[in-house]
Amino acid sequence: MGMVGGGPGAFIGAVHRLAAEMTGTIDLVAGAFSSDASVSRQFGVELGLDGRRAYGSYDEMIEAEAALPDDERMQCVSIVTPNNSHADIACKALEQGMHVICDKPLADNLENAERVEAAVEKSGLLFGITHTYTGYPLVIEARERIRAGELGDIRRVVVIYLQDWLSREEDTKGSKQATWRTDASVGGESGAFADIGTHAFNLVEFITGHEMVELAAELKAVIGGRDIDDDGGALFRLDNGASGLLAASQVCTGAANGLRIEVYGDKASLHWSHGDPNTLTIGRRGEPDLTLNPGSNIEYLSSAATARCRTPGGHPEGFIEAFSNLYVDFANAVRAYPDPVDNVCATVGDGVRAMRFIRAAINSTNNGSAWTKI
Amino acid sequence: MGMVGGGPGAFIGAVHRLAAEMTGTIDLVAGAFSSDASVSRQFGVELGLDGRRAYGSYDEMIEAEAALPDDERMQCVSIVTPNNSHADIACKALEQGMHVICDKPLADNLENAERVEAAVEKSGLLFGITHTYTGYPLVIEARERIRAGELGDIRRVVVIYLQDWLSREEDTKGSKQATWRTDASVGGESGAFADIGTHAFNLVEFITGHEMVELAAELKAVIGGRDIDDDGGALFRLDNGASGLLAASQVCTGAANGLRIEVYGDKASLHWSHGDPNTLTIGRRGEPDLTLNPGSNIEYLSSAATARCRTPGGHPEGFIEAFSNLYVDFANAVRAYPDPVDNVCATVGDGVRAMRFIRAAINSTNNGSAWTKI
Amino acid sequence: MGMVGGGPGAFIGAVHRLAAEMTGTIDLVAGAFSSDASVSRQFGVELGLDGRRAYGSYDEMIEAEAALPDDERMQCVSIVTPNNSHADIACKALEQGMHVICDKPLADNLENAERVEAAVEKSGLLFGITHTYTGYPLVIEARERIRAGELGDIRRVVVIYLQDWLSREEDTKGSKQATWRTDASVGGESGAFADIGTHAFNLVEFITGHEMVELAAELKAVIGGRDIDDDGGALFRLDNGASGLLAASQVCTGAANGLRIEVYGDKASLHWSHGDPNTLTIGRRGEPDLTLNPGSNIEYLSSAATARCRTPGGHPEGFIEAFSNLYVDFANAVRAYPDPVDNVCATVGDGVRAMRFIRAAINSTNNGSAWTKI
Amino acid sequence: MGMVGGGPGAFIGAVHRLAAEMTGTIDLVAGAFSSDASVSRQFGVELGLDGRRAYGSYDEMIEAEAALPDDERMQCVSIVTPNNSHADIACKALEQGMHVICDKPLADNLENAERVEAAVEKSGLLFGITHTYTGYPLVIEARERIRAGELGDIRRVVVIYLQDWLSREEDTKGSKQATWRTDASVGGESGAFADIGTHAFNLVEFITGHEMVELAAELKAVIGGRDIDDDGGALFRLDNGASGLLAASQVCTGAANGLRIEVYGDKASLHWSHGDPNTLTIGRRGEPDLTLNPGSNIEYLSSAATARCRTPGGHPEGFIEAFSNLYVDFANAVRAYPDPVDNVCATVGDGVRAMRFIRAAINSTNNGSAWTKI
Repeated sequence: MGMVGGGPGAFIGAVHRLAAEMTGTIDLVAGAFSSDASVSRQFGVELGLDGRRAYGSYDEMIEAEAALPDDERMQCVSIVTPNNSHADIACKALEQGMHVICDKPLADNLENAERVEAAVEKSGLLFGITHTYTGYPLVIEARERIRAGELGDIRRVVVIYLQDWLSREEDTKGSKQATWRTDASVGGESGAFADIGTHAFNLVEFITGHEMVELAAELKAVIGGRDIDDDGGALFRLDNGASGLLAASQVCTGAANGLRIEVYGDKASLHWSHGDPNTLTIGRRGEPDLTLNPGSNIEYLSSAATARCRTPGGHPEGFIEAFSNLYVDFANAVRAYPDPVDNVCATVGDGVRAMRFIRAAINSTNNGSAWTKI
Repeated sequence: MGMVGGGPGAFIGAVHRLAAEMTGTIDLVAGAFSSDASVSRQFGVELGLDGRRAYGSYDEMIEAEAALPDDERMQCVSIVTPNNSHADIACKALEQGMHVICDKPLADNLENAERVEAAVEKSGLLFGITHTYTGYPLVIEARERIRAGELGDIRRVVVIYLQDWLSREEDTKGSKQATWRTDASVGGESGAFADIGTHAFNLVEFITGHEMVELAAELKAVIGGRDIDDDGGALFRLDNGASGLLAASQVCTGAANGLRIEVYGDKASLHWSHGDPNTLTIGRRGEPDLTLNPGSNIEYLSSAATARCRTPGGHPEGFIEAFSNLYVDFANAVRAYPDPVDNVCATVGDGVRAMRFIRAAINSTNNGSAWTKI
Repeated sequence: MGMVGGGPGAFIGAVHRLAAEMTGTIDLVAGAFSSDASVSRQFGVELGLDGRRAYGSYDEMIEAEAALPDDERMQCVSIVTPNNSHADIACKALEQGMHVICDKPLADNLENAERVEAAVEKSGLLFGITHTYTGYPLVIEARERIRAGELGDIRRVVVIYLQDWLSREEDTKGSKQATWRTDASVGGESGAFADIGTHAFNLVEFITGHEMVELAAELKAVIGGRDIDDDGGALFRLDNGASGLLAASQVCTGAANGLRIEVYGDKASLHWSHGDPNTLTIGRRGEPDLTLNPGSNIEYLSSAATARCRTPGGHPEGFIEAFSNLYVDFANAVRAYPDPVDNVCATVGDGVRAMRFIRAAINSTNNGSAWTKI
Repeated sequence: MGMVGGGPGAFIGAVHRLAAEMTGTIDLVAGAFSSDASVSRQFGVELGLDGRRAYGSYDEMIEAEAALPDDERMQCVSIVTPNNSHADIACKALEQGMHVICDKPLADNLENAERVEAAVEKSGLLFGITHTYTGYPLVIEARERIRAGELGDIRRVVVIYLQDWLSREEDTKGSKQATWRTDASVGGESGAFADIGTHAFNLVEFITGHEMVELAAELKAVIGGRDIDDDGGALFRLDNGASGLLAASQVCTGAANGLRIEVYGDKASLHWSHGDPNTLTIGRRGEPDLTLNPGSNIEYLSSAATARCRTPGGHPEGFIEAFSNLYVDFANAVRAYPDPVDNVCATVGDGVRAMRFIRAAINSTNNGSAWTKI
């Protein structure tokens, strides 16, 4: 695998590398880690890459690797750059016959996302998006139980994703990560909704198996001087008529990284929170709540969930493990290619849908929170 | 005190009596407990009333009591009937010079609520509404901390009130309580939003000290055949520009009586859930969360909170205690009348606001969830 | 009912009165609230007693009441004085034909406890001890589930009761409650083990249905200058061979009133904590944990538990309600007397056992924590 | 690094490999994974080892590697075999100049543990023991806060480690892991106390900074036919006079891997549970509890804790990360060797102390739970 982005100080790049490393089957063999060629090369060497494969730019990397013999060149590219460069890099890699795994959101705007989608279709290659939360065993278990009908018809969903790392005006100064996420020219047309709202959106569709078809949203820049949203809320509807509430904010003081989802059906409900990702609660009427925990040996879990546990019951799984599960699945898909395999990693189609969600939220906001199709 | 409603099988009537009894200062001396005169009289006697004061109707009670000498007659009326009779009873009692404490919502529709408000103003008497949750010590503490500026400017509120006791079609048959709450001619123009959405609304205003000024709502009858809402969600705005999400539903399977509120300011946030009412969490950025517990001797609490605790720290306070705190405050107000006292019991003004909230939610729903002034 | 003790400033006396009041069937008609006769009389009047029945001493009260006609005199006495006076008051009341309900522990030492037991046997009257925690609906549910065999053979018990209100040297000065509890001449031969260790002991026997037969204990006075224990731990064995751990301490900083119990059987386990008394967790192997909540309408609970709930599911029950359940049961027993009724209130036999527990703990401590029969 | 043990089906061997892999700095270059030479070699190849370094036995591996040039041979050995072979393997590796990291407990009995300790001293090499729990950031934070005096003088400790995977008689049949852990000839003189009691013991000493000096214990084989303990409890004393309770059991139904510790001082207390390892609670008297969470960027944590976090606040760390932290520290120590570095990995001295703890527990049990020096 080769990586684009994730140079010194980048949070998510380091997570991608840890996650890939943890699979035990993916080797980081090449990289273009920074837009500064010398920084990029030096960083690659520090990571232990062969110096010849620590490239100065992604163009250079993709071209040079494409020119290598099949059994030497990298098979896939991991894109962990700011949003506005995802599409160009992805398209270039796909054109050169490389599978791509990309950080979310898919692109800085819907048009670029659709451009990637077209490139994926044309190439027939694999494209994964790391919506981390779908890698948690109990999120997968939630999906499986809904698939199996345990909740019955879904009626109402509540999904809340709140952070506070941009809660102060000064937060967008100094920090590279903060700056690009609140700068429309780099991050894209949305801030908080693009950065974390898309996680919430994807989680709803992943767990419920329903598409979100319309929303009534209000995006805001709470902190003066920001030109894209740092906070917002929405009502939404699923394709089966169920209703939901969604909030995504990066200015909610005291919320570290609080993603929670509750899904209510006519037979039961389920509750998962990232603050305690190793607990899934099933609520029933007239019967005690059930508390589920992960573990490779837990008999009451679906095989889809146990297969994504690294340890037996009682051993907490964390963020890196969830992230790594996406890489495990992506690597399995690469190995099985072109045969399909069960894969909890989001697809390019999911990524385009997330961009449509952002666009609909912006349009709804600009239209007095009117109901807007996704 | 005399009671109207709360006859055999009525849940909330029994709670009102326990709550009043627990104050140690309120005596139930009269009552008209049922629309069936003989049932009413018999039930009164069973409760230990003097048989002459176990009346056959509220008209009879109010008139007979009004005719008694000042030091014998009941001073106030507690109304615990279905919503559509609140206004008539309240007006009659006020006209006869009796203070009134009334279950929520104030009335079955806004017009009747305003009629009561006018009667209160004309009489100059006291009128309390039992929005139970404002009686919990830690809800009061939440209000005090926001008043003291600990959260800074409020930015976002999430309030969710979900139940499941009407989650099945058959739930509205057989049970008296369920039937009137889902029958527009008795319960009023709204179901879930009137029954529990108003609690959520009142809690937001009570805790934050801000008025909710507009909302974009979607009320629904999830279960076929119901003519008023059993489920709904809303975006809302407070008078300081803060945004919020509200859900109220009685068809969310697995939710017993789950009311939760989170308030985020620019300095801190707070989190309270009825499922564990004896914990209030304060979230801060860059500092550990604080967990507060109630107790008459807890030094870090405001005096407004400790004064509403019956036991020292470590002794859980429950629903009846919270309810009783409303009666304690109402009784204090009656004793101090006409001088005002600190009182966490909702006023007739709060009650009218809650009715405006319902009306706005209905209008918004009928208007494509458009933003609607409250 | 008449009360002895519980004058101005006494915490537990006020709780007893609230608990009795909440039953709706017990009237406080007489009292001797203080060892100072005029304080006692004045306090009784303030509580609303008929002045003639606000007595100057318990001797006076018991004699005067005994002289009243049967249908006027108080039927039972509630004893809420410091431990060293329980036995004398109880014996006097029993001799005069009055049922007794007494705060725990039964007496200041085993000999006095046995004296009361003999008096109860001789009189044939009712004697209840308010081990509060047996009044919680979910504690009763725990007992019922173990009785029904849901846990199988009990193997291990962990019971921990920690407080911090005596954690500082100065705590035993100034506060009346603290002073007598740490003064052997008033509180008796033990401090923390008598005050709260007996609750833990009683809870184990109540829930498991097994007797604790021996223990190996270490009682300590952590704070210098105290002549009785303020902290201690013990290993113990039940009559079926199960093992357990018990801790009771009043010097554990940060512990408000933290009583927890866990019982492990060969089929399942259960977990209850006073910090969240409305949750009972059932742990099973290879199956999800079950979370139980109280409520008068909760179908999965035993009738013994639902009968002790005042409200439907989702309405938290607190300390006063639990305490009141003991009075409800005691009042039911008085009404049914001499026929027996289901009664979760501890008996004089339980009280004597608790005193044997204290004595065994002291003897074990003095004997190098040797295993000592209870 | 070379590994001994951890062949097909071994749980802890796989964890060690993941943990080492995650460091990004340790390469598994050699291994002797099974006592069956061909299984061992094949497994090594499957793991991706150079076939020449997939050895048939640990003797073969250590000798062959020792014969390689310094810059080729493995620098250290990871021992993940059953307890009774730890000492021989460790001594052999140390004699050949290799650092050793070993699963706990150090050995099958005290004598063998002391033999290893002597070999470490003679060689001057590094020796680490993977008491996993000391790798959790918040466990390290707990230690740091106690070191800084935040709890004041420690008074009481409660540490409970319960599992249920051996709760049935049949559990010791079929499973390799279960069999050797309950077979004295392989696992050693103790079962549950050796397997998990030593974790509890080590955690107490690690967090409090005090040595456990004596205990009064009761070890038991609850399930008939087992010749070593599967359950037990103990009272203990620390070197400063503090008292504690410890339980360790593998037959407590419903307990997956429940390790919890509470430490009470005269100024504050702390509470950590493996069930939610990303929360550390500080209890204080008269002030709200504090809830701490991990994160590389959390300012209120010690640098010792933040340095062991891989992600910013709000991203749960799990078991593998904690385990990996031990390997990170061990690798750092190897790199700095012979200079010492801050290292949260247990030492050979800790390992010998854990074996003395086991021996004392056995002796105390055999002596009527008499207090026994460690």
